[in-house]
Formats: sequence, C-alpha cells, structure tokens
Amino acid sequence: MRILLINPNSTESMTEKAAKAASLVARPDTEIVPVTSKNGPPSIEGFLDVAMCQSELVKEALNHKDVDAVIVGCFDDTGLDALRCVFDVPVIGIGEAAYHAASLVSHRFSVVTTLSRSVAGISDNLNNYGLAARCAKVRATDIPVLKLEENDPESLNLIRAEIAAALNEDKAEAIVLGCAGMADLMAQLSKEFNIPVIDGVACAVGFAEGLVSAGIKTSKVGTYVSNTDKYAVSEN
Amino acid sequence: MRILLINPNSTESMTEKAAKAASLVARPDTEIVPVTSKNGPPSIEGFLDVAMCQSELVKEALNHKDVDAVIVGCFDDTGLDALRCVFDVPVIGIGEAAYHAASLVSHRFSVVTTLSRSVAGISDNLNNYGLAARCAKVRATDIPVLKLEENDPESLNLIRAEIAAALNEDKAEAIVLGCAGMADLMAQLSKEFNIPVIDGVACAVGFAEGLVSAGIKTSKVGTYVSNTDKYAVSEN
Amino acid sequence: MRILLINPNSTESMTEKAAKAASLVARPDTEIVPVTSKNGPPSIEGFLDVAMCQSELVKEALNHKDVDAVIVGCFDDTGLDALRCVFDVPVIGIGEAAYHAASLVSHRFSVVTTLSRSVAGISDNLNNYGLAARCAKVRATDIPVLKLEENDPESLNLIRAEIAAALNEDKAEAIVLGCAGMADLMAQLSKEFNIPVIDGVACAVGFAEGLVSAGIKTSKVGTYVSNTDKYAVSEN
Amino acid sequence: MRILLINPNSTESMTEKAAKAASLVARPDTEIVPVTSKNGPPSIEGFLDVAMCQSELVKEALNHKDVDAVIVGCFDDTGLDALRCVFDVPVIGIGEAAYHAASLVSHRFSVVTTLSRSVAGISDNLNNYGLAARCAKVRATDIPVLKLEENDPESLNLIRAEIAAALNEDKAEAIVLGCAGMADLMAQLSKEFNIPVIDGVACAVGFAEGLVSAGIKTSKVGTYVSNTDKYAVSEN
Amino acid sequence: MRILLINPNSTESMTEKAAKAASLVARPDTEIVPVTSKNGPPSIEGFLDVAMCQSELVKEALNHKDVDAVIVGCFDDTGLDALRCVFDVPVIGIGEAAYHAASLVSHRFSVVTTLSRSVAGISDNLNNYGLAARCAKVRATDIPVLKLEENDPESLNLIRAEIAAALNEDKAEAIVLGCAGMADLMAQLSKEFNIPVIDGVACAVGFAEGLVSAGIKTSKVGTYVSNTDKYAVSEN
Amino acid sequence: MRILLINPNSTESMTEKAAKAASLVARPDTEIVPVTSKNGPPSIEGFLDVAMCQSELVKEALNHKDVDAVIVGCFDDTGLDALRCVFDVPVIGIGEAAYHAASLVSHRFSVVTTLSRSVAGISDNLNNYGLAARCAKVRATDIPVLKLEENDPESLNLIRAEIAAALNEDKAEAIVLGCAGMADLMAQLSKEFNIPVIDGVACAVGFAEGLVSAGIKTSKVGTYVSNTDKYAVSEN
Repeated sequence: MRILLINPNSTESMTEKAAKAASLVARPDTEIVPVTSKNGPPSIEGFLDVAMCQSELVKEALNHKDVDAVIVGCFDDTGLDALRCVFDVPVIGIGEAAYHAASLVSHRFSVVTTLSRSVAGISDNLNNYGLAARCAKVRATDIPVLKLEENDPESLNLIRAEIAAALNEDKAEAIVLGCAGMADLMAQLSKEFNIPVIDGVACAVGFAEGLVSAGIKTSKVGTYVSNTDKYAVSEN
Repeated sequence: MRILLINPNSTESMTEKAAKAASLVARPDTEIVPVTSKNGPPSIEGFLDVAMCQSELVKEALNHKDVDAVIVGCFDDTGLDALRCVFDVPVIGIGEAAYHAASLVSHRFSVVTTLSRSVAGISDNLNNYGLAARCAKVRATDIPVLKLEENDPESLNLIRAEIAAALNEDKAEAIVLGCAGMADLMAQLSKEFNIPVIDGVACAVGFAEGLVSAGIKTSKVGTYVSNTDKYAVSEN
Repeated sequence: MRILLINPNSTESMTEKAAKAASLVARPDTEIVPVTSKNGPPSIEGFLDVAMCQSELVKEALNHKDVDAVIVGCFDDTGLDALRCVFDVPVIGIGEAAYHAASLVSHRFSVVTTLSRSVAGISDNLNNYGLAARCAKVRATDIPVLKLEENDPESLNLIRAEIAAALNEDKAEAIVLGCAGMADLMAQLSKEFNIPVIDGVACAVGFAEGLVSAGIKTSKVGTYVSNTDKYAVSEN
Repeated sequence: MRILLINPNSTESMTEKAAKAASLVARPDTEIVPVTSKNGPPSIEGFLDVAMCQSELVKEALNHKDVDAVIVGCFDDTGLDALRCVFDVPVIGIGEAAYHAASLVSHRFSVVTTLSRSVAGISDNLNNYGLAARCAKVRATDIPVLKLEENDPESLNLIRAEIAAALNEDKAEAIVLGCAGMADLMAQLSKEFNIPVIDGVACAVGFAEGLVSAGIKTSKVGTYVSNTDKYAVSEN
Repeated sequence: MRILLINPNSTESMTEKAAKAASLVARPDTEIVPVTSKNGPPSIEGFLDVAMCQSELVKEALNHKDVDAVIVGCFDDTGLDALRCVFDVPVIGIGEAAYHAASLVSHRFSVVTTLSRSVAGISDNLNNYGLAARCAKVRATDIPVLKLEENDPESLNLIRAEIAAALNEDKAEAIVLGCAGMADLMAQLSKEFNIPVIDGVACAVGFAEGLVSAGIKTSKVGTYVSNTDKYAVSEN
Repeated sequence: MRILLINPNSTESMTEKAAKAASLVARPDTEIVPVTSKNGPPSIEGFLDVAMCQSELVKEALNHKDVDAVIVGCFDDTGLDALRCVFDVPVIGIGEAAYHAASLVSHRFSVVTTLSRSVAGISDNLNNYGLAARCAKVRATDIPVLKLEENDPESLNLIRAEIAAALNEDKAEAIVLGCAGMADLMAQLSKEFNIPVIDGVACAVGFAEGLVSAGIKTSKVGTYVSNTDKYAVSEN
C-alpha cells in the first residue's frame, strides 16, 4: 500500500527524518510517499503557524490523491480535519496516533514538546480527541523546532529533564514525544528510561496500515462529507 | 475607537450585512472597519473551508493593524487563535461572543446553524471555550450559507422550526444564531419567540468596546506570544 | 443608560471603590447607580456570608428597578441567579464578567482572591459557568476583604506573590483579581506584570453596556421566569 | 441522637410530612427535631426562593445547635454550605442524600421534580456534587410545590408519567423524587414500578445516623471553617 | 439486621480488623457477618489482584445470601458491580462509601492509599462514581497492604506524611484512608489532624443500615438485572 | 509475529469467528493464536460475567506467554488491565481498539451492542479511556450474545434498526459493533450503510501489529508493574 506522509512545514530535513522513522516500521509492501509542503513555514510552532500552513498543505496533498492512507507529519495534527474532508482513505495525525498508542500501553502519559506556545494547541487537541483524560501534563522544553535538527546534546538533555520530571511529578507511565523532529529519539530514550517513549510517526504508520488492512475508511457522512467543489479539485 | 470587522469569506454582501449589524449597536464614537478577505472561499462551511481561508485571513488582517480591536466575522471563529498571535489588541470571534452573551442571560442555550458539516467545528469550539456545559444542542438547518443571502421565506421557516424544537426538546432558554449571515434576524426572531435570539456580531462589538474601555489587551505570554517574524510582517 | 451597581455587603467604601472603577470605563452617557445593601454583612467571605446577604440584596435591588442593567459588585456573584428572576434587563456578576473577559484574551487564567474559605464558592461558580476549563487555579492570599480597604503595602505584596506563582507554576496567561476590593489595582498590576490583570467591575460595565446596546435581555423562559409574587413586589 | 430536620419554607404541613417520613426510618433512639423556618417563603421553587430563604434558615437553625446532625429538608439543598460553616456536626441535604443513595443502588438515575424553574438549581447541585455523571435527566412535572400538599390524583399521575418516561427514554434504573413534598410517595411508587423510587428525607436520616455513629464531623479546615462572628451567634 | 462484610482477600486478620471497625459503629441490633474469601489472594494490590479474586468472591458471597445488605471490605470495591447482579439487597463498597462520606463533610478530599499500582483503579472508580470532581488527589504511601498488619510506627509515619502533604499541597479538607487495613487508624488520625480522616468500613455500615431502614434495594432493571443462571446458583 | 487472541468466554465458535476475522486482516507473517478460556462462562453479558471469567482468563493467557502481542476478544475488554500486569508485550481489547479506530475516521460514533445490561460496562470503559467524548450513544439491540451465533435474519434486522437510529437520531458518523460475535458483519454493513461499521477484532490486529513494529511495549512503571508472584507464574 502507499501512505502519503505529508509535512506541513517546508523543512526537507524534517520530512526526511520522519520518512526514515516511518520506513523503519512500515511493512515490506508499504511505500511511504514523503511530501514537503513547499510553501509552508519552516516550522510549526503555535497557532499562527498552524493557521498559515493549512491551505498550502491541503493543496499539496491534493497532488497526491492516489494513496491508501495519509499521515500528517506534524505533532499539532495541522489540517487533519480538513484533509479528512478531501480524502476518502484514512487520514491520521502523528499527535493523535501517539496519544492513542500511549493510552494503549499506559494508564497515564505526559507529552514533552518544544515551545511553550505550542502547549495550548496540543491541549485543545487532547480535549477534542477525548484523550485529555489520559494525559497527565503537556510539558514544554522551550527548544525551537529547528534547533532539534542540529542534534546538539543540550537539546537532548532538556528533553531528558522533562521526561524525568514527568515520571516523578506527573506519575506518567509513558512519554509522548511532542514534535516530528524528535522521531529519531524514540528507541534511545525508551531504552534509557525503560518506559515507552512514543513517537507519533511510527504509531501513525502502524495504525494507518491497520485501518487499510481492515478496510476502514473516513466517514463521508456529516463532518467529513466531501466538499472540494469550491477549490476546483476533483473529489475522491 | 476603530474596530476591524474581518470576514474570512469573500462574499461582500455578508461583510456588509455584518457591518450593518455592527454599526447598529456600536457607540457613536466607534468606527467599524469592515474588511473582506478577498482570496477566501465564498463561504465557510465546515473544516475544509476553515483551513483554506486562514492564511489569507491573517494576511488581510495584517494590512489593518491600526485598530483598537478585531472581530472575526465568521461563526466558526476562524483564525481566532492565530490573529491573537499577531495583534496586541483584543480579538473576538462572533461565535465566541454569542456563546458568552447567551450564558449571561440564560441558564442553557442552543445553537441554530447552517449545514450539518459545521456542527463538529462549533462543538469543538464550545468544548475548548468551556461553554459546552451551557449549550444544550447545536442544531443544523441544512441551509447553505449563501442561500441565507437570498432572504427567502423558506430559509427563515427552517430556522424558526429549529428554534421551536430547541425550546421544546432541548429546554433551551436562549438561541444563538450560528452564522454571520443570520445577523439581520436577531431582532425579529427575539420578538417573535419572546426569548433572547442572539447574533454574535452585535455581541462582539459590545464586548470589544468593553474590553478596550477597560484597557484589557490580549496576553502576550505563552500561547499568544507574538511570532510574526516568519511572515515578514511587523509586530505590534 | 443607567446601570445599577449593587454591593451585597454593607461597606460603603467598597461600593465607592467599585463605583469609581465602573465610572472610569463607562460610556459618557452611562449613569452608574451605586447602591449598598445596608443590612448585609460588612464583607462576603465564603458560603455563610453569601447565604446571609442574599435576601437583603434582592430587596434592596427591587428598590431600583428603573435601570437598564444590573451588576452584582461582589466577586462571589452573590444572588446573581435570584436577581435574574426579578429583572428583565441583563444582570451580570463581576466574577462572571472577569472570567469571560479573561478567556477572551488568554488561553488560561488564574484567580487571585482573598480568604481560603472563598475558594470553594469561586470554584463552584467556574464549574457552573463552564469556565473551569479555562481556569488554571484559584489562589487565596488569605488577606481578609476589609484589610484591602487599608491599602497597606503588605497586602499588595501578598497579591504580587500569588500572581508571580500563577505565572510560573500554573502557566497562567492572565490574572483575575478575585475581590471587588481589588478593583483599584487592575491598571497598576497589569503594567507591572505586563499581562492582563483583570478586575470584574470594569469588565461587567462594558459587557452590560454591550448587551443593552444589542437589545439582549434576560431570558424569561425556564430558569429565570419572573416569580416575585411571593415577595409582594411588582414584576418587571 | 438528636437530628435537626429544618424546613427552609414556612409550610408546616411539609415539615410534618418530612418529619413523619424521617421518623419512619429513624433508629429507636434517634429523636427527629422538626423545625420550620417561620419567615421563609411558603415554598422553594427556583433560584429566587432559594436566595430569599437562606438567612432566615441559618438564623432558625442557630436556635437549635444542640443536635448531633442537621438535615436540610428541601430538595434544593438550600443553605447547605452555609449551615456547614456554623455547625460542627454533619449537615446533609435531602437532595444530596437522595443522589448518593440512588448511585449506590443503580448505575444511572433520573430526577422527577416539580417546576421547570427548579431544574437549573438541581442540575447545578448535581454538577458540583460530581453526581451529574450518574444522573440521566432532571425532569419537571410542572406541579407547583404546594399543590403536592393536596394529594390529588392528577399530580400523582403526572409523577407516574415522568417516571415511566425516565425508564423508557432515559434508561434510568432508579428515580429520585425531587421535592420534600413527595416524601410520602416513596414506598407506593417503588412498589408500583418495581424499582427504587427514592425520597431524600429517608436517605438523609440514615446517612446522618451513619456519620454520627462513625464519629465523622464536618471539616473545619478551608471551606467550612466556622466564621459566625459577624452574626453575633456563638460558635460550636 | 444482618450485614455481610466480605473480604475479597484471604487474610483473616484483615477481615477481623474490618469486622471490629464495623461492629464499633453498627446499631445494637445489627449483626455483622464477617466472611473471608478463602481462595482469594492474600491482598488486593492493583488490577491483577482485582481480576484474580472476583469469581471466588462472588461464589463465597452466594453462600451467604440470607442477609439484609452486603459490604465489600476492600478499598478497590472489588466485584461490587457483579455482586449487585446477584443480590437484591444493597451492596456497598468501602471505597465508595468513604468517597460519599467525605463529600458530605468536606468540599474537597484526598485519598491516602498503599501502593502506587493501586492508584489507577481508585481513580477509575472515582471517575465512574462521578466523585473524581471532589477528590483533589489519590496519594500512594507505597506501604504494601500486608505490612499494615504489622502496626509498625514507620508505616504510620508514612501515612501521616501523605496526610500532611494532602492538607498543604492539595488543600484537602478531609482524608479518605485508602485500604481496609487502615480501618483502625480513623479515630486516632482524625484527632491528631483535627479533620475528618475517614475509613470506608465505618461509613459503609452506616450507609447500609440507612438504606435498609429506608427500604431501598438494588435496582433490578438494566445493569444489575439478576442473571445467575449461568452459575448454577439460585437467584434472589 | 505471533498474536494471542484470547476469548474470555468458553464458546469455541465465537473464538473461531474472531480468529477468522483476525486472519483476514493480519499481515502474511502474522500468526494469530486463538485460545478459548475453557472455564469461562459461555458468553460475557454484563458485570457478573465479566467478574466470573477474569481469573480463568488470566490463567489461560499465562499458558501462552510466548507471543508478541495479546488481543482480548471480548467487547467488554474483560481482564485488559490485569493482562497488562502480566505481559510486557502490548495488550489490546477489541472494544478499546474499535473506539480508537472509530475516532480516527469519524467525529462522533455510536456503539450497537447486545443486551441492555452490557451498556453500563461499555459506558464505564469509554469513560475511563476518555473516548466517551466521541461516543454519541451506546445502543442495545437486546439480542443475547449466543443468539448471534445462529446467524438468523431477525438479529441482523435488529442491528440494522439500531444503526439507522444512530445515524438519524445520534448523528453518528460511524458505528462500532459492540460484540465479538458481530465480527463477520463489518464488511456487509459498512457497504450497506456506506459508512464505517467497525469491528474491534480487525482493528485490534492492525493496532497490535503497529505497536509491535514500532517496538512499543506495555509500560512497567506504576499501574502495570509486573506482580505475578502471588500466582506462582513466571514473570515476563
């Protein structure tokens, strides 16, 4: 099957990192189709970036409709609801996937993300998904998203410090890594802390494959009814 | 004071209708600055339109920064959080304003909106504002937004039918009109049903004036910290 | 328009302070009608005082029915629901107004109030208004209400300390001042902390003016149906 | 032990009916002390009555401090929090007691009360007690409280109709009778519908006796700290 | 009346301790029937033990159907819903009873329990009972259940430390002791901290007696309909 | 990989049906290991059955520890938390899996289950998973579980009727089939109603495969810490 992995920001290295994380866990017969939203902002950090990137994200996605599932490769699940209006196939956000996964393997998890200004959007998402009930706390490291691309040890230590605080103070039993740019840290930190440290890209791939295998598609009744006629694109 | 009333869709007649509703209730010394987001979709009906209009909305708003408050003239409160990241002055959505007003004059209200596919976004907003607790039900008339511009009696009867159902079945004590295109119906329907039938434009103007008079501005700590540097626009 | 500003406690200096705060933000053509509930307790501090002052508050208010809106000048929103049963015009509590205002300019706010025994009532109110979802924490300074009338620097420092804690620990983005006796601190503390520090009196005036301008009155269906016949007062 | 059963309204026949219901279930060595709040309204129907009766209720209660527990004999739990500030012994509302009892013997219950204008206060109480989660619906029969004193068959049939609707539509498994004036219907209706039809007076007596036997008193830390000094009454 | 007090674990000393606590508060004419579930695990500590003990608990209880009420003597309220399917008489869990009692005498309580792995089950219970809204925090002392049987001073000090933290940090106004093995500490700790420190055994006895006196039985409609035919036991 | 599919009831035909549904969607290299809990009740219908089957379920599962993931093949997610205490690998319930899947492809879903007495347990689960927020209603067909094994058209029509009601009345956008015995109806009903009609077995397989591929295991900190020493079984 073919899974579109679309990055709403314009930073190619993040797309590549996410694509690599996806490929590592994908089935042998799954093709990951990594796409970067070229006109997006270089990173998605808070409500302004989420708003600014959405129309370009949808337009870019519409160039790749011949897929079996779509993954939004941004932890804010940017444009998720909009993409469900234009695709019949399953559309999964990596934030969403990570929360669902964390609630399957722990009773209570915490999120460790980048900037403080992203916390509100993540909290709103958890609230609307219903999974706020399972999330102990959303913690910011105050590492800018693109700083993560530099792989410097200081950033890693800031992440470690928040994980430790989540375990001690929040009594979290699993950690969700709150940025696509942290996708490469999942294995290392899981081992280091001996708990599930969860990256959404890996989870989204497995969940997408599962939904496709089960023949489950996006509902086209009510909220996600196709209505692309205003945008001169062909419907599914 | 000057209040920017920005319509995220491109339909000038809706902007005019909202501006008229705003002017009717504004203080003598308040100037309503009506602006249409020219590159937006003709109407905002569900998650896809919300996503597609946001970047143009923000860009258009940034052309009008010399104002004392901003009102988003779309019941979905499109781009509300993003605009709070670029303005220091208060930014109010008409959906939000209507919910707050309804909860000040009734114990429990219902919303009567246009299409079924808009219900989910409205419900998510109510959820995130906290006011879901005060809303009995969000009801769709299944009137397309632009159909409201035709002022045909059938549309009005559909709205009347949902108001009656809200009173009888939901035990609603007030009605929120769930579309900027219904702004001209507030007085007539309030009188007809002898309950508060609330349009968000009118409420948003009063609340904006109130916040400005009280000297209250958007918080620039955390969620709404200004971060427009990526978009080559000057900060407040 | 004429706005009744009724203080449920018998301390005239608090009525005057609130009236001054109200006048500062009111429109030129708004007349603030300050009234003190002469038989009330000297201060409202917790559930007992709330219970003891309510019948006198309602009786006093009924002497001033020729107004366009009513503001309850006590942060506990004492008697709010009862007054909505006897007035057709809008009735707003200053606690309520402050919570609504705070949620319009921040994603998350904290309340800084007087005594610990007032926290439960405030929490119940937030719960019933639905706005508990937006409130990070209700913090007590343990300053008695009447102590605030002395304007001593120690009280101000206690308030400052709780504001600082709210910003650091609760990640609050705005502060609601939880007592009418703090109405004079809004401008100073907003400037000092560079965030919205919100007094409910100022907000209530603007919201009341807005509702009146928009022609929105209290719903007389269900909860707030007029039923003053037991109390030998004329209905609206 | 001595249990004060205080009726916040001035209708002696209701006090007597409640006292009879209490005596039927009380232990042999329990003395029920029935008291009518002489200056209260003849019935408590909605927020206005709740507000108007509270100070007289507290004053009357303070004349009877030599008791082991207090029961507020009004389904709105009028003055409950205030009385907890003046008594060290347990204070229980009959509404509260009925909700707790219903949640011990069913997964989901509905309330059948008198007037529509009382529904909001009951809902707020359920919300603040936390037990809203267990209540399927609060239903009004629109029987005025004092009409219940006439024992006419029509009123009983209205109650029966709402119980039947609660079973069929709400899937309620138990019914809470939402007025002290229905205390005499518990046995008959339980038998008739073959489910628990619960009156709060009976439950409150048992719970009060249980708390007294277990030596559990009202907490005097925080919310219910004694503060009667303003009212020239001796503290416990 | 006869009340079955059934301990789902096999530790006789815990049954005896609970029976003693029950007898201390029971009415003179109440007979406490203490039963130990002989094939249960020695202690119930977390979800595995809860699962492993349930069928034996139900089977044991069915040997003692000639009772007027049933108390499950384990703070996890193990098997509570199942027992309600096989008994017509009231069935009360000691956890449940303690939460209800605490919410009758305080605005906000905290739970002090044994192991960290029990916290999730307690939280789920509070959530499903609706009383999570009144619980500030569930705190673990990390004392193993059977260690409590040794009455060593260190365990008591760990409990004291968590109570102190609950008062200071959670602003709890009452404490619920989260293990049947702490039943003997209620009086001492209540006196020591001068707040209600509540053991569920004592509360459950009083509540059971109250429900029986009021003639209230378990609803046999819906959730708790009797369906013991699969298990070759006679129905009530 | 090897996935244990354990059926907590003793009806082999249900295990076979679930195993067939699982195999249809499993990866080529996934081995489904179907196991029937021989000493369980013939069906799980409500809280009593859930309680009675759990210890046997855990014991049976412990005979099959050499697997990569575990699926509990009962819609009540019976024993889910207990199995997470004894397995390090992921453990997924089919109810849980279906709710998560439904929330990935619709904004709001309804559940169509068997008997009314199962509704409460399903509701409690949704509540504790957090996904109650996304579920419009849990609907009972009142078809006994084993009746589903007869494949009679009447049962299918009852299911169809509830699906239709869910779409019309609840505005559900997807349906979750609330019994393992309905696993064979997913494809047919999805096609018939043209919406996602979701069976949990299929979803659980995909999610389990996804978690295993991503290397995510059950957290062994806090709630699910291994503690099988009481039961004389070797830990993972």
